[in-house]
Amino acid sequence: MSTSVRLAIDVMGGDFGPRCIIPAVARSLQMTPDLHVILVGATDPVAQLCQQHRLPPERFQLIPTTEVILADDPPASVLRGKKDASMRVAIQQVRDGHADGCLSAGNTGALMVLSRSLLGTLEGIERPAIMAALPVAGKSCFLLDLGANVDCSARQLFEFAVMGSEAASEVSGIDRPRVALLNIGSEVNKGSHNVREAAKLLRESDLVNYVGHIEGDALFRGDADVVVCDGFVGNVVLKASEGLAGYLQGEIRNALRASLLLRCLAPLLRGALKPTISRHDPGCYNGASLLGLNGVVVKSHGNADEKAFSAAIQQAVRVSRAGLPQRIAARLDGLSWPAA
Amino acid sequence: MSTSVRLAIDVMGGDFGPRCIIPAVARSLQMTPDLHVILVGATDPVAQLCQQHRLPPERFQLIPTTEVILADDPPASVLRGKKDASMRVAIQQVRDGHADGCLSAGNTGALMVLSRSLLGTLEGIERPAIMAALPVAGKSCFLLDLGANVDCSARQLFEFAVMGSEAASEVSGIDRPRVALLNIGSEVNKGSHNVREAAKLLRESDLVNYVGHIEGDALFRGDADVVVCDGFVGNVVLKASEGLAGYLQGEIRNALRASLLLRCLAPLLRGALKPTISRHDPGCYNGASLLGLNGVVVKSHGNADEKAFSAAIQQAVRVSRAGLPQRIAARLDGLSWPAA
Repeated sequence: MSTSVRLAIDVMGGDFGPRCIIPAVARSLQMTPDLHVILVGATDPVAQLCQQHRLPPERFQLIPTTEVILADDPPASVLRGKKDASMRVAIQQVRDGHADGCLSAGNTGALMVLSRSLLGTLEGIERPAIMAALPVAGKSCFLLDLGANVDCSARQLFEFAVMGSEAASEVSGIDRPRVALLNIGSEVNKGSHNVREAAKLLRESDLVNYVGHIEGDALFRGDADVVVCDGFVGNVVLKASEGLAGYLQGEIRNALRASLLLRCLAPLLRGALKPTISRHDPGCYNGASLLGLNGVVVKSHGNADEKAFSAAIQQAVRVSRAGLPQRIAARLDGLSWPAA
Repeated sequence: MSTSVRLAIDVMGGDFGPRCIIPAVARSLQMTPDLHVILVGATDPVAQLCQQHRLPPERFQLIPTTEVILADDPPASVLRGKKDASMRVAIQQVRDGHADGCLSAGNTGALMVLSRSLLGTLEGIERPAIMAALPVAGKSCFLLDLGANVDCSARQLFEFAVMGSEAASEVSGIDRPRVALLNIGSEVNKGSHNVREAAKLLRESDLVNYVGHIEGDALFRGDADVVVCDGFVGNVVLKASEGLAGYLQGEIRNALRASLLLRCLAPLLRGALKPTISRHDPGCYNGASLLGLNGVVVKSHGNADEKAFSAAIQQAVRVSRAGLPQRIAARLDGLSWPAA
């Protein structure tokens, strides 16, 4: 049986702000009867939007804030300034025990810096990581880190593997998730020093079901449930994949429009392709988790529309229900590291 | 007017060996009347295959060898052993002035190590790089490095930018190629230390038309002609892109097969999609250049079929004709580096 969930939502973040987020919240409250939300943002226009979209008053609370963190605010400066920013106040709700998790579509770097500062990292975790799911072969393939850490030590990659494995098993119910390290070449001696050292740590540990190195093409063969890499590689691969998928979709659409007969058949083609396209719609997989923190923080794509933001809310609900930080902490408890 | 080209071909490399390569050579000799080839490999079966595919005797020469470098031979060991390997002897043809360039579908690491040892690197180049073209929006986007260098200094990334720019302009005739650094985030202060330092070197130099950082998704928007990154990132992105394109193609094919009506329309759909699929067929873009060496070395995909190997031969012909090593050397001549 699932327990009720309280989610703090930064309604000012993202490209479309409250006008997109409030309707998504309304939809989510309908879909998830035991969800309560704490909406953090400017009273005007949020209060009016809540009324307009008929949010049930007993299921939401509005915390008014006066500042907003912008996409190009340097992460370091948001630590010192903007004390009343919606993103900061949303994270504080988690820190102070008022919410089980928080969700923002704002500046990723700022979200990470504020979360680390306000919530702290879990005992045994050097650096938090960002994780998202790629839709592969009807399942989720969890990829981390996606940009929080540009260079990663072997130990950090090992920690990412443990955190990703817990997330895949607790949030998505995958039994003994297969964890792989993303590498160039699948042989043991291939790749960077840190990746090879991380592989050694993983082979010697029984904390995760480590299945070895995989190469870039194997990401889309479903060979692993969790794929670990440093944040530079993960960010570039994720964005390149999104870019390529969008590009190919456009190319195919243009090709099919070129013939008159196929233009007439467009509704039929759309119908046939719809399930495939929906299954791979990045919007449906929106909601990246910041793992390794003392609390649940979920990041939505900045350009999420109403449907995509709803998906991120659902993801935040799942992660909050799973009590992931506690589970990761328990998994790492007692693990001793060789002195650096 | 183009001049005649002599190409040394390692006919033993790749997954399919001479049975695939000799027919590809026969086809290429027909297509390129001023091409001469030096085929390096085992007399049996190569001599017989040449006869069978009617290679004109005056346009090819067979150099018999007795050893083959295997896919899992460690690069370091091939330097010491296998003195009569087909790959080594093919590179020696370039070193000794008998060929304008060489081509192999064998072990990439071994090809790089042998090429460096036999040909040497160009004055001013610290490390060679591997470059290939991605088909984007009807044009080529050149990506390097693709795996020769796992970690790259700022200076190496700068060198890759110069080499890639020369290649794009001399081999593909792009005027003032737009060169970008692959990064996470497009802002100047984003990314790893080495990428930011490389950006500084590029901004201060007038050797290339540097257009700034691009993110992974921009790779497929045609925002740059040459994209520079370290070999780990490049290898993972290239393979992930190939994997994703293949995966999506399969998913779309399955979706279209699910409806009886669409199955009947399959020939029509195939016809409409064929130009798009061919334009993005990795086979047609086969042939990665090893840049920064004192000689032309081109690498074919190991799993290239006859058509794909023919594309690699054409690519090797273009690179050999362009005299790329000399042009890169001239471009770097007189460039002074700050003392390390």
